[in-house]
Amino acid sequence: MSLYPMTSDFLGVITSGLHALKPYEKDLRIETDDMSTLVVGAPEPLFDAIRDLFEASAKRPEHVTMHVTLSRGCPGEPDDPSCRCEALERAQDQTLAERQELATEAVKDAHTSGVLIDVQFSLYVMGSGDHMEEIYGCIEFLKSSGTFLKSKNFCTRLRGDAGAVFETLRQAFLRFGPAEGHVTIDLTASANSPSLG
Amino acid sequence: MSLYPMTSDFLGVITSGLHALKPYEKDLRIETDDMSTLVVGAPEPLFDAIRDLFEASAKRPEHVTMHVTLSRGCPGEPDDPSCRCEALERAQDQTLAERQELATEAVKDAHTSGVLIDVQFSLYVMGSGDHMEEIYGCIEFLKSSGTFLKSKNFCTRLRGDAGAVFETLRQAFLRFGPAEGHVTIDLTASANSPSLG
Repeated sequence: MSLYPMTSDFLGVITSGLHALKPYEKDLRIETDDMSTLVVGAPEPLFDAIRDLFEASAKRPEHVTMHVTLSRGCPGEPDDPSCRCEALERAQDQTLAERQELATEAVKDAHTSGVLIDVQFSLYVMGSGDHMEEIYGCIEFLKSSGTFLKSKNFCTRLRGDAGAVFETLRQAFLRFGPAEGHVTIDLTASANSPSLG
Repeated sequence: MSLYPMTSDFLGVITSGLHALKPYEKDLRIETDDMSTLVVGAPEPLFDAIRDLFEASAKRPEHVTMHVTLSRGCPGEPDDPSCRCEALERAQDQTLAERQELATEAVKDAHTSGVLIDVQFSLYVMGSGDHMEEIYGCIEFLKSSGTFLKSKNFCTRLRGDAGAVFETLRQAFLRFGPAEGHVTIDLTASANSPSLG
């Protein structure tokens, strides 16, 4: 993930944003270089950490965006044992409708941060013949999630409280696409954009 | 694609960057909203336009990054007829080795801009049983491209002149993965980063 504060004091915003990751250091492997930060671990602390980093940065007045690439089940780079996740293990036995319902419930139960954010993202399901069925099933969930704004070319726009939006992303990532398959998400988050007026 | 200038005058940099797209307006469909710019068209003007936008922005002194998602052959959103491309049509009949050679030649012939940039990117090949073979073939080309910096978790780092780097990306996108398949690239470009010292 990479944080892009649209201010000449971008280093200050990035450094204070990275402080929000401190509580997660025991559960996640976190490595920062000049282009991005790699975070490896289970989906529970991982999505919480990403959300907290962006929430902390978006509470400041400046326009800030974040880009994140999420990956699970990459055959070229097997998941670390720490990435283990119950939702994925159970997904094998659940119908698309059951998974949509569980995902919608989880978004309803998400914590409220008071920070309004915009997100656009794409979900990719690889190496499977039936990837469009899972993607359409995921889009149906998104439309009923309460955070859906609109469909765009090649991606979906979400808008809402950072808590609900990141929970929507976690559910989309975990409950759709084969449990053992290679699934990725490409997402951009934005806050305090002057274009929104 | 989205341009992120790390300066309080970010609107000025974005606006002047978008001017670099002017010469391409007759060949490409270009639509900008509050989060990103959609560009639809053939790979020749499309990669040239992305390169020129980033080159123009990187010639200024400020740290600037750009995120781009590239997609071809999406079954849910068929390519526009304007996206037609000879390299893709011929790829069906060419072996992996032949495609690697053509890709390497194209990078050697790329124009030189004098602007040094960093890129990290991932190539995704969807809905195909054999996607890792194409990805490993692509990585082999990248390593001999002259712009390869290193492999990272889930992505590849390139460094070099903007001309050679964007040609490397175009070749990776067009010559690897099935010609009729759904292939995407998730890429981040960076210039003038203070982290590089």
